[in-house]
Amino acid sequence: MAKVKKQPRPKAETPKGFRDYFGAEVTERSAMLAAIGKVYHRYGFDALESSAVETVEALGKFLPDVDRPNEGVFAWQEFDEDDKGDWLALRYDLTAPLARVYAQHRNELPTPYRRYAMGPVWRNEKPGPGRFRQFYQCDADTVGTASMAADAEICAMLADTLEEVGIPRGDYLIRVNNRKVLNGVLEAMGVTDEAQAADVLRTIDKFDKVGEAGVRELLGAGRKDASGAFIEGVGLDPDQAEPVVAFLTSKADTTAGTLENLRAAVGDSFVGAEGIDELSQIAALLEAGGYGADRIQIDPSVVRGLGYYTGPVYEAELTFEILDDKGRKRQFGSVAGGGRYDDLVKRFTGQAVPATGVSIGVDRLLAALREKGRIGSEVQGPVVVTVMDRDRMADYQAMVAELRNAGIRAEVYLGNPKNFGNQLKYADRRHAPVAIIEGGQEHESGVVQIKDLVLGAKLAENASLEEWKERPSQYEVPRAELVAKVREILALYQ
Amino acid sequence: MAKVKKQPRPKAETPKGFRDYFGAEVTERSAMLAAIGKVYHRYGFDALESSAVETVEALGKFLPDVDRPNEGVFAWQEFDEDDKGDWLALRYDLTAPLARVYAQHRNELPTPYRRYAMGPVWRNEKPGPGRFRQFYQCDADTVGTASMAADAEICAMLADTLEEVGIPRGDYLIRVNNRKVLNGVLEAMGVTDEAQAADVLRTIDKFDKVGEAGVRELLGAGRKDASGAFIEGVGLDPDQAEPVVAFLTSKADTTAGTLENLRAAVGDSFVGAEGIDELSQIAALLEAGGYGADRIQIDPSVVRGLGYYTGPVYEAELTFEILDDKGRKRQFGSVAGGGRYDDLVKRFTGQAVPATGVSIGVDRLLAALREKGRIGSEVQGPVVVTVMDRDRMADYQAMVAELRNAGIRAEVYLGNPKNFGNQLKYADRRHAPVAIIEGGQEHESGVVQIKDLVLGAKLAENASLEEWKERPSQYEVPRAELVAKVREILALYQ
Repeated sequence: MAKVKKQPRPKAETPKGFRDYFGAEVTERSAMLAAIGKVYHRYGFDALESSAVETVEALGKFLPDVDRPNEGVFAWQEFDEDDKGDWLALRYDLTAPLARVYAQHRNELPTPYRRYAMGPVWRNEKPGPGRFRQFYQCDADTVGTASMAADAEICAMLADTLEEVGIPRGDYLIRVNNRKVLNGVLEAMGVTDEAQAADVLRTIDKFDKVGEAGVRELLGAGRKDASGAFIEGVGLDPDQAEPVVAFLTSKADTTAGTLENLRAAVGDSFVGAEGIDELSQIAALLEAGGYGADRIQIDPSVVRGLGYYTGPVYEAELTFEILDDKGRKRQFGSVAGGGRYDDLVKRFTGQAVPATGVSIGVDRLLAALREKGRIGSEVQGPVVVTVMDRDRMADYQAMVAELRNAGIRAEVYLGNPKNFGNQLKYADRRHAPVAIIEGGQEHESGVVQIKDLVLGAKLAENASLEEWKERPSQYEVPRAELVAKVREILALYQ
Repeated sequence: MAKVKKQPRPKAETPKGFRDYFGAEVTERSAMLAAIGKVYHRYGFDALESSAVETVEALGKFLPDVDRPNEGVFAWQEFDEDDKGDWLALRYDLTAPLARVYAQHRNELPTPYRRYAMGPVWRNEKPGPGRFRQFYQCDADTVGTASMAADAEICAMLADTLEEVGIPRGDYLIRVNNRKVLNGVLEAMGVTDEAQAADVLRTIDKFDKVGEAGVRELLGAGRKDASGAFIEGVGLDPDQAEPVVAFLTSKADTTAGTLENLRAAVGDSFVGAEGIDELSQIAALLEAGGYGADRIQIDPSVVRGLGYYTGPVYEAELTFEILDDKGRKRQFGSVAGGGRYDDLVKRFTGQAVPATGVSIGVDRLLAALREKGRIGSEVQGPVVVTVMDRDRMADYQAMVAELRNAGIRAEVYLGNPKNFGNQLKYADRRHAPVAIIEGGQEHESGVVQIKDLVLGAKLAENASLEEWKERPSQYEVPRAELVAKVREILALYQ
């Protein structure tokens, strides 16, 4: 008989590309999402939570081959005797599920349907430093209206949201562009070939990096980059490049000026004029709502997403400076983006339904709040009631109950109480602001010792002997004054 | 050449056993979880969010066979050229991930480690009516201490939590039992065979249904059930059944009395005495914290979970009555349960680590709050600004901006404005309390019409013509008074 092999111990590890979030990492994100949800709600958006799991068929794009599902999503086949089970997958964003939900429930949903959604999404990609395979998204979309008022509203909402979570006015800018204007530019250039149009789009995407001269070279014969490598150009005549360059550099001091420049760039293209009209509508609506150029601007140099969206695109940038990895100053950059897309539910119903929406980069925005000092300062831990006498646990329990009933975060030490030093070390690890001590002697005299651990740490670091004596960090108070004294100390550090 | 087959349209459907949650279903759950988190935090528990995906190896219990993973979890294999990729799975509860997290991070975590977690879990089970394959759990556990103070604390926290979310004192009862006492009872019975002990456990689980006499029959020769079918018994002597019956019926008017009865039931069993001592410690600690028998009781008839846990078990029951499907009154029943379990991380590290924890049935508790009328009343929708003149969208946008800046939930109608009736139907579907109307005439006169839709609906239902005239549900106010008047109407319905 074969020997039963002893099972090796399992590894205690998250799967590659996944991570755990502890304490403030969790609560700060929840608080930020709750603040965002509050603004979305005020704008009439309704919450939607679809399940993490969808059929691969409904998700679209990712169709499983016979042996294994395509890369990009985590997918598996439902068990079925005849191997005909559905392929299921974890959602890779919140837009694909919205399309499915809207198609499935469209008869019960209002038209237009304003909805927001927040939650984790999953990508089956090679994990890298700081790149995880599960992360949060936070989206708001309006489905079922072609009105530019929907786009304007989302831009205004984005501004309100940034301010609500703690990015002050002046530290962000929402920039709006329009894909149709770019289409008009392509017409004005005489580019009709789809492959060539795609090449132009790719070049435009590099405008941020290579600037006007670089774009000209890349649209023409080609360009040598900094390393000396030659990048082949699109091969257009120099004249043909003019409308693109005019488009990218059309931003003027005023919205009217910008729109005027764009009109020149698109020539007599019909779709171009339509795009400019849309931008002008959005600008007028925002102005009427009190959202001036200090918060939202028409800016044709926004190119991210132009390839994907079909009408207006918008992007929220944080304009304050941070230091990058190499200590160089740079702007914080984009934290949210979106735009208008057609055919959201067409795959399901055959009917085109216009939609526009935004997605906030949850982790980027959290990082920004950390930069601004809005979150991430050391979190105050609970008050720790130490255990001097194991048999009087009930007394200590009564103390924490009193503290908690007064709304104060408090816990009794539940480890081995033998070594008192360990209890103070524990309080330190918990970032406890206050420790309570009641030994037998105190108990008999009806008093408790209250240690101000914040002050204690400060004194330990840099106080002279005199200061030590003058500013005691430990107080003896009557047992009945426990809560009042703790509250007094906590008030110093809030 | 083969013809390219036209792809059929995908079905817009959630996978079997999954569902979507809309509006208040989402926000009510979030609000409840936030309230629970607040109490947990006050008790010194720290948030933990682990990823939804774990390795099957770390989850344990569910090991994949070659062809397909075991039932019970959703699992898949990571792609690897040599087919040696890790098996990954969606977590099926929050305890298995806690074990992995604690084993992985134990050097950085405080000891003991109090943590709470809330989020969806997934079960690969046959879906049924009201049974879903994704649902929320909300857990709190203390890892790394054998102290009964940890168990007592969780019971107290559970009581505070229920009151915080809206279950008044008197409408719930937390009942505490101990597996060790049952082990003592088994010793007193002379049951040493594991299989027989398991049979006794199964019988005890039926106490709720079959009562004392039924348990006696099932422990002995067997029992005929209501349908006449015969269920074979465990085959014990009638004498042997006495300790079990004494155990199950040992609840007295006072805790002291109950403990006395239990002492009799376990005879001279050492482990039994240990269990009774633990219960007596818990009772003393809770009393010291002010948690009396109106909230938490020692109750040996709590049998759920006794098979799984190793020490104290606790269960929160809602004691108010509801009508079941057939219109009969019954108690609402259990909404949370937990207990002490050993060996949480032993699989990973070889070291036994004691732990105790509770899991709240999120959906059950939400249902209870709905029964108590705490949530689920019709949610007030946004104020709807109608569009009388498509070209003056900017004016309407300015109105909603004003309302929102005043903190009022408001939206402008974004559908096709041609048919005004459709706009009012939309407002109705949105449960809008108020509609704003500003046509060309109003605009010229500098006024707006404000429709009280709540009163309007009431009048439409049952008012006489006189009442209609006396209590107009539509007001004309100067444009400048828009916000003030809307606020006045909303105040009537809050």
